[in-house]
Amino acid sequence: MKKLNSDAVKIIPLGGLEQIGMNITAIEYEDSIIVIDCGLAFPEDDMLGIDLVIPDVTYLKENADKVKGLVVTHGHEDHIGAIPYIEKELNMPIYATKLTMGLIENKLKEHNLMNNTRRKVVKYGQNIILGKFRIEFIKTNHSIADSAALAIYTPAGLLVHTGDFKIDYTPVFGDMIDLQRFAELGKKGVLALMADSTNAEREGFTKSEKTVGRTFDNLFNDNQNHRIIIATFASNVDRVQQIINSAYKYGRKVIIEGRSMVNIISTASELGYIDIPDNTLIDISQIKNYPDEKLVLITTGSQGENMAALSRIAASIHNKISIMPGDVVIFSSHPIPGNEKAVFKVINELEMKGAHVIFEDTHVSGHACREELKLIYALTKPKYAIPVHGEYRHLKRHAELAQEMGIPKENIKILTTGDVLEVSEDKLEVTGKVPAQGVFVDGLGVGDVGNIVLRDRQLLSQNGLLIIVVTLDKYSNNLIAGPDIVSRGFVYVRESETLMEDCRAVVEEALEKCLRKNITDWGKIKTTIKDSLSEFLWKRTKRSPMILPIITEV
Amino acid sequence: MKKLNSDAVKIIPLGGLEQIGMNITAIEYEDSIIVIDCGLAFPEDDMLGIDLVIPDVTYLKENADKVKGLVVTHGHEDHIGAIPYIEKELNMPIYATKLTMGLIENKLKEHNLMNNTRRKVVKYGQNIILGKFRIEFIKTNHSIADSAALAIYTPAGLLVHTGDFKIDYTPVFGDMIDLQRFAELGKKGVLALMADSTNAEREGFTKSEKTVGRTFDNLFNDNQNHRIIIATFASNVDRVQQIINSAYKYGRKVIIEGRSMVNIISTASELGYIDIPDNTLIDISQIKNYPDEKLVLITTGSQGENMAALSRIAASIHNKISIMPGDVVIFSSHPIPGNEKAVFKVINELEMKGAHVIFEDTHVSGHACREELKLIYALTKPKYAIPVHGEYRHLKRHAELAQEMGIPKENIKILTTGDVLEVSEDKLEVTGKVPAQGVFVDGLGVGDVGNIVLRDRQLLSQNGLLIIVVTLDKYSNNLIAGPDIVSRGFVYVRESETLMEDCRAVVEEALEKCLRKNITDWGKIKTTIKDSLSEFLWKRTKRSPMILPIITEV
Repeated sequence: MKKLNSDAVKIIPLGGLEQIGMNITAIEYEDSIIVIDCGLAFPEDDMLGIDLVIPDVTYLKENADKVKGLVVTHGHEDHIGAIPYIEKELNMPIYATKLTMGLIENKLKEHNLMNNTRRKVVKYGQNIILGKFRIEFIKTNHSIADSAALAIYTPAGLLVHTGDFKIDYTPVFGDMIDLQRFAELGKKGVLALMADSTNAEREGFTKSEKTVGRTFDNLFNDNQNHRIIIATFASNVDRVQQIINSAYKYGRKVIIEGRSMVNIISTASELGYIDIPDNTLIDISQIKNYPDEKLVLITTGSQGENMAALSRIAASIHNKISIMPGDVVIFSSHPIPGNEKAVFKVINELEMKGAHVIFEDTHVSGHACREELKLIYALTKPKYAIPVHGEYRHLKRHAELAQEMGIPKENIKILTTGDVLEVSEDKLEVTGKVPAQGVFVDGLGVGDVGNIVLRDRQLLSQNGLLIIVVTLDKYSNNLIAGPDIVSRGFVYVRESETLMEDCRAVVEEALEKCLRKNITDWGKIKTTIKDSLSEFLWKRTKRSPMILPIITEV
Repeated sequence: MKKLNSDAVKIIPLGGLEQIGMNITAIEYEDSIIVIDCGLAFPEDDMLGIDLVIPDVTYLKENADKVKGLVVTHGHEDHIGAIPYIEKELNMPIYATKLTMGLIENKLKEHNLMNNTRRKVVKYGQNIILGKFRIEFIKTNHSIADSAALAIYTPAGLLVHTGDFKIDYTPVFGDMIDLQRFAELGKKGVLALMADSTNAEREGFTKSEKTVGRTFDNLFNDNQNHRIIIATFASNVDRVQQIINSAYKYGRKVIIEGRSMVNIISTASELGYIDIPDNTLIDISQIKNYPDEKLVLITTGSQGENMAALSRIAASIHNKISIMPGDVVIFSSHPIPGNEKAVFKVINELEMKGAHVIFEDTHVSGHACREELKLIYALTKPKYAIPVHGEYRHLKRHAELAQEMGIPKENIKILTTGDVLEVSEDKLEVTGKVPAQGVFVDGLGVGDVGNIVLRDRQLLSQNGLLIIVVTLDKYSNNLIAGPDIVSRGFVYVRESETLMEDCRAVVEEALEKCLRKNITDWGKIKTTIKDSLSEFLWKRTKRSPMILPIITEV
C-alpha cells in the first residue's frame, strides 16, 4: 500500500478554517477535483454594509476542466449558501442526500438556475464516481436531518470527512449515525480524518435531540393556560417536529412564522422529513379563531436577528402578532457568539411587554463534544488528523485531542484557508497556497466592494464627512463662489454655526496660501484644504471626519 | 411612623436601568436633592463613532440650588466615569470612601477640576448630613475595594441602596460585608431597598475572590517553565494582589502593563490598598534581565478591547512584548455580553502564535447571586423593593425574587430611567418623568452628536455615498459643468466605470427634465436628481447609498 510522493492527494480548504462558516474544500488528484460543500459566511462587524461573504473560487475556475462535481454534506447555510453564486461561475454537478438537495433546489430556483444545474440525489451507502475519486455517503446525526459524512476513496488512500456531526443514539428522525461503517473503514485503513472541531473545547457528550422533546412536554404541561411562542433555528426540522408532537399531545394548534422556517418546513414536509398530524397546522390568519392557550407559534429569530419574526413581535412591529401579558416565550437555541446582545435585547423587550421568557434546557448542540470525537478516532484510527470546521482555538483543541488518541504530533495538521496540503502514506505537507479570501456580496454586487470601500465606510461611520465646495476662476484661480460646506454625520450644523464659520475661514486661508504660492494644481490645492481643515478640526473637536474638497472651475 | 402623602421622598433614576452602566440616581425631598453615583456607559453598537455616553442631568441643572452633594458607592467607571463631565455643569461636593475618592481624583486631575471640586473622604459607619438627608456608608464586598452601600435617612423613611455588591465571607482585602448593620437597619425599619440586580438571574452564591487565588497558585505551580501573562480588569485590585501573591510565592517578577491598570494600581498602592513585596514589581524595560519562567505580566485587555495591551500583544503590534511559543496566557475575566467575539479573536491570535490560553476557574463575579440577594432581603425586610442596576430581564428576575421573599407584588416597583417615583409609608407611585436620555460624547464634543447625525453615520456605513456636482448657469439654469460624481464607500470606481457613466446620464436626464418643466428651485432640482439616481441605483445594484447633489451657480 506504500505510495510514492507523486501519488499524493491535495486537500485545499477554500474556507471554513479560522472562522465558523463558509465551508468549502477542494480535493484534487491529478486531473480530478471534487468540491466538498459550498457555504457562505455572515459578515463580521467590521464588514460594514456587506450582506454575505462567499468563497473565492479563483483556483477552481483556473482548473475548471478538472472539477468533477460538488458533494454536499448537509443543508445548512454555511455549507450550501454560496452554491447559487458559485454555480453561476462553475456549473458543477451537485451530489447530496434528499433533504439537502431539496434545500439546495430552493436556492437554485430563487436564482433561476434549476434548468442548468445537474443534480443527483444520493443515498447513504451509495457510491459515486467522480474522476479519480469514489465517494461514499455515510449516515451521521446533526441538527438537520439527512446529514452525511463522506468516505473519499483516492488513489493515495482513503479520506474520511465527517461533515458537521454529533452522535445521537436516539435521534428524532431516522437512524443513528452509522458507527459500524466508520469502524469498517477504520479496519480497511483511513489515511486522513477530517472531523468537525466546533465543540472540540467541550468535554463529554452532546445530549440527544430527544431530551429537548422531554423539556417541551414539561413546559407545555406547566403552561397550559398560556399562549406559547417558541423560537428556534429554521433548519432544525427535528426540533420543529418535537414542538409539533408536544402541541398535538396537549391539543394545541401550531402556527409557523418566518419566511425561512416556512420554506424549510414545507420542503421537509413535501419530502417526508416531518410528520404533521392533520388539522394541527393552521395559518396565521386563523389565529383569532382559537383561544390563546390552544396555540403554539414556532418562529424564526432565536438569534435576535433584526428582521426575523420574533424580533418584530418583540418590537411590536409584527403585523399579525403582539405579545400579551402571560405569553410564554421559549428560546430553543443558544446565542451564537456575537449575537448575545441582540438576543438579550429581544428578551428585554418581550419581558417588558409581560411575556415570561424561558431558555433553560431547551436546546442541544448539533456538534460532537470531545468524547464523541474520541469515539470517531477510535473507530477510524486514521494515520493523519486534519481538524476542520472551526476557529483556530477549536482546531487547536481538536489537534490536542487527536494527539491524546495516539496520533503522533507530526501526523496532525492544522491548516489555514488557502493551504494546499499534499497527503500520501509518506507525506503530509503544505506545498502551496491558493487565493482564498472571502468575496463580499453587497446587494446585487459580488466582489465589487473591497477593502478600500470598507475602509471608507468605516471612516464615514466613525466621524461622518465634510464636503468643501469651491468654485475657482479658470484663469486667475481666484475664488468665485464658496467655500460652501456640506456635512453629514459630523455635528448638528444648526448647533455648530460658529464651527462652520471657522471652517470656512480655514478653507479661505488655505486657498489664499495657494494663490500666494502660485499653486495651481488641483490636487495640491485639495491637499492643502484637507490638511488645514483636518488639523483645525482635530484641535477643536478631537475628531477626524472625512474631508472631501470639490473644486469647480468656470 | 405613618407619613402623609406630601411627605414622600422622590427617587429619580437618571440612568442605570434597562442597561448595564451609567448609574446615577437622584433622591429628592422638598428642597434637598442628593445624587448617588455618576457613571458612564460605553456606546452600543449602533452609536457609531461615539466614545462615551454620559447621563442627561437637565433635571439636576434645573434644580441646581437643591442639589446638596454627590455620594459615590464605588470606583468603577459605570459609577464614577461621568463625574468630570457633570461636575463642570453642577459642581457638587463629592462624598466617597478613600480608594473611590482616589480614583475620582485621578479623573478630576485629568480634567483640571481638582481645585474647584469639594471632596470629602467618608469612612464606613460615618454619617454625613446633606440637606434633609442623612447618609451612612456601609461596608460591602465587590470586585473593587472600598465599596459601600448607603443607608439614606429621609423624613419619609429609611432607604437602603446596596450599590454593586456581593457577599464575600473571606475577602482578599479588608472586612467582609457588614451584614450586622444591614440587620440593625432592618430591625429599625427599612422603607425601601434598592439592590443590585446584575446577577439576579443566577442561582446560588457568588464564590469568594479568594478561590481565584487558589487557582492562580495551582496554575503557577503547573507552569513553572513558562512565562505567564494574565489579563484582568484594571480596577480589580484584589485580583492583582492575588497574582502578585502567587508570583512572590513562586519567585517571579511582576510587570504591570496597560495605562489604566498602571494608574489604578499606583493609586491603590499609594493609598494602601495593595501590598507589593519589595523587588517584586519591575519595569517593562527590565524584561530582558529575567528569564521567561521568572516573569508574570499583568495586563489590560481581558475584554478583547482593540487598543488594550493584551490585544496589541496578540496582534504583534505591542512594542515591547511578543508572544513566544510556550507562553501561558490566563484570562482572569468573563467576556461581558457583546465582547465575546473580540475576546475569541484575541484567543485565536494568541494560540496561533503558540501560546496556551486558560480561562477556566480564573474569575469570579463581583455581584450577588440569588441566595445573596435573598439574605439581604431577609436582613433588611424592606417595605418596598426597587430593583436597580441591570437590564429589564435582570430587574424582572429580581422583582420575582423580592416577591418570593414575601414582599407583596404592589410593593415592588421596576422603574424606567427618568421615572419620578414617590415613596412614603402609604405611597409607591410613579408621578412624573424627567429627561434622561444619555448624552453622547464624541471627541471633545458633548451632546453635539444626536440621532440625526447617528442616522447619517449609519446610512454612510452601510452603502457609502455619491456626491453629484453640477454647475448651472445663473440665468438659464443650463448645465455649465458636470455632472461630476464623487463616490466614497460605494463601489470601486475603477471597476465600475460604466456604472458611473450611467449615473451621469441619469443625472443629466433629471436636469433636462427640470429645465423642460421650468423647475428652477434648487431644492426641487436636488430632489429630482436624488430620486432618479436612487431609483436607478436600487434597480441596478440593490443598494441605497447616500446621494448628495451639490449645485453651484455662476
